[in-house]
Amino acid sequence: MNKTKEKVNAAIVLIGNEILSGRTQDVNVVTISMWLNELGVKLEEVRIIPDIENSIIKTVNELKKKFNYIFTTGGIGPTHDDITSKSIAKAFNLSYGYHKEAYSILEKYYGRAKFSLGRKKMAMMPVKATLILNPSSGAPGFIVENIYCLPGVPSILKSMLGGLNDKIKGGKKILTKTVSVQTVESEIAKSLENVQFKFKKVEIGSYPFFRFGKIGVSIVIRSIDKKKIDDCYKEIVNFLKKKKINIIVKK
Amino acid sequence: MNKTKEKVNAAIVLIGNEILSGRTQDVNVVTISMWLNELGVKLEEVRIIPDIENSIIKTVNELKKKFNYIFTTGGIGPTHDDITSKSIAKAFNLSYGYHKEAYSILEKYYGRAKFSLGRKKMAMMPVKATLILNPSSGAPGFIVENIYCLPGVPSILKSMLGGLNDKIKGGKKILTKTVSVQTVESEIAKSLENVQFKFKKVEIGSYPFFRFGKIGVSIVIRSIDKKKIDDCYKEIVNFLKKKKINIIVKK
Repeated sequence: MNKTKEKVNAAIVLIGNEILSGRTQDVNVVTISMWLNELGVKLEEVRIIPDIENSIIKTVNELKKKFNYIFTTGGIGPTHDDITSKSIAKAFNLSYGYHKEAYSILEKYYGRAKFSLGRKKMAMMPVKATLILNPSSGAPGFIVENIYCLPGVPSILKSMLGGLNDKIKGGKKILTKTVSVQTVESEIAKSLENVQFKFKKVEIGSYPFFRFGKIGVSIVIRSIDKKKIDDCYKEIVNFLKKKKINIIVKK
Repeated sequence: MNKTKEKVNAAIVLIGNEILSGRTQDVNVVTISMWLNELGVKLEEVRIIPDIENSIIKTVNELKKKFNYIFTTGGIGPTHDDITSKSIAKAFNLSYGYHKEAYSILEKYYGRAKFSLGRKKMAMMPVKATLILNPSSGAPGFIVENIYCLPGVPSILKSMLGGLNDKIKGGKKILTKTVSVQTVESEIAKSLENVQFKFKKVEIGSYPFFRFGKIGVSIVIRSIDKKKIDDCYKEIVNFLKKKKINIIVKK
């Protein structure tokens, strides 16, 4: 019964006009994705949506059925444009108000005298949600069903992920190998396609790069199966050697 | 008849396992979004999806009805994991094969002798698509209906946008004003909410920041209406002065 699932997947929903407007460069996808890799959870979709209640409700309701875990970022602060908590409560038809534990955490964090109405708003969420503790700045995130609501500020988000490790039941860990070579994609396209055809359960990606004035390609192999990834890797290195293509990095 | 539309919107679909896996930090959303702002097109949704034919087909078919313009990035190179062109052809039931003009552009770019099978693949797309010229590296993108297919490599993508300016019919340009202040969000939350309530057609965002060891908040106002944005801005600056909150930057 307790067998590790082969595949566990997730989606991220970035909630924020500031990302859509181009004002803010998102960095949270990389952070969450790399953390999920370690836990054996595969990120399979990301959506960036505006601070609009209806968009949030529709998006989480659609995604919660398709993925094991949904992570939202943004919109849980104290200002009028922070509408994630209320929207999630509406989406799941849950009662929304002061969350007792969150309220007492925040009251302690700010001190009673400085616990203003704005700050109190950060304790408002689905009242029975499970909290995600925030070691950086007090205000907690929360969990409702398979939706994990996190803040948008990258450093705060990052500090909260560790506390979630035991709440996420991952599948087999996704393993990666990379070979970077000094060539252009079209030189290796056919051979790579043949290897992919042979190893259907391994994900082979080809990514051209321009670095330090040199062009090259990184070949990235991903799989949960150590044996398959090793065999696939060997096959790729073999054809590269045959073609006398210069390998820059193997890892 | 030729009146500028009030609102023109767009969505971006980033196609690429490398972004979902956390290997690659996306920067194309900011590039495209800022370019769209200049053209009076509002980016309203972004999706990041894997290199899976079915995901591409479902996503573009859903989004093309909801938005005026859809931009895809990635998956138009020469390798086996580049499946955007074929998937778009399938999504729209279009015949897929060598695009004559693309073929001749690429043949000229590489020279007949070096125009390998891998490189020829980049000329394969919906055969009647309109090309998006590529001043950096030859291989064109293409347009089918309201879907604009661009490459994933940021520098190449960037170089191709300029050539699209006259193909995009934007609405009124979205104007922005920003006031950055030395305070915390909860100090201004209530006043900001009142201003937002008064100016319903202006989008007011509040974004906390930590920079050079200082904390602060950027208040960003966006609208297509110059008068409304100016009035809203004045109101915000007024309440900041009343509250004796230090304004760091106005722009």
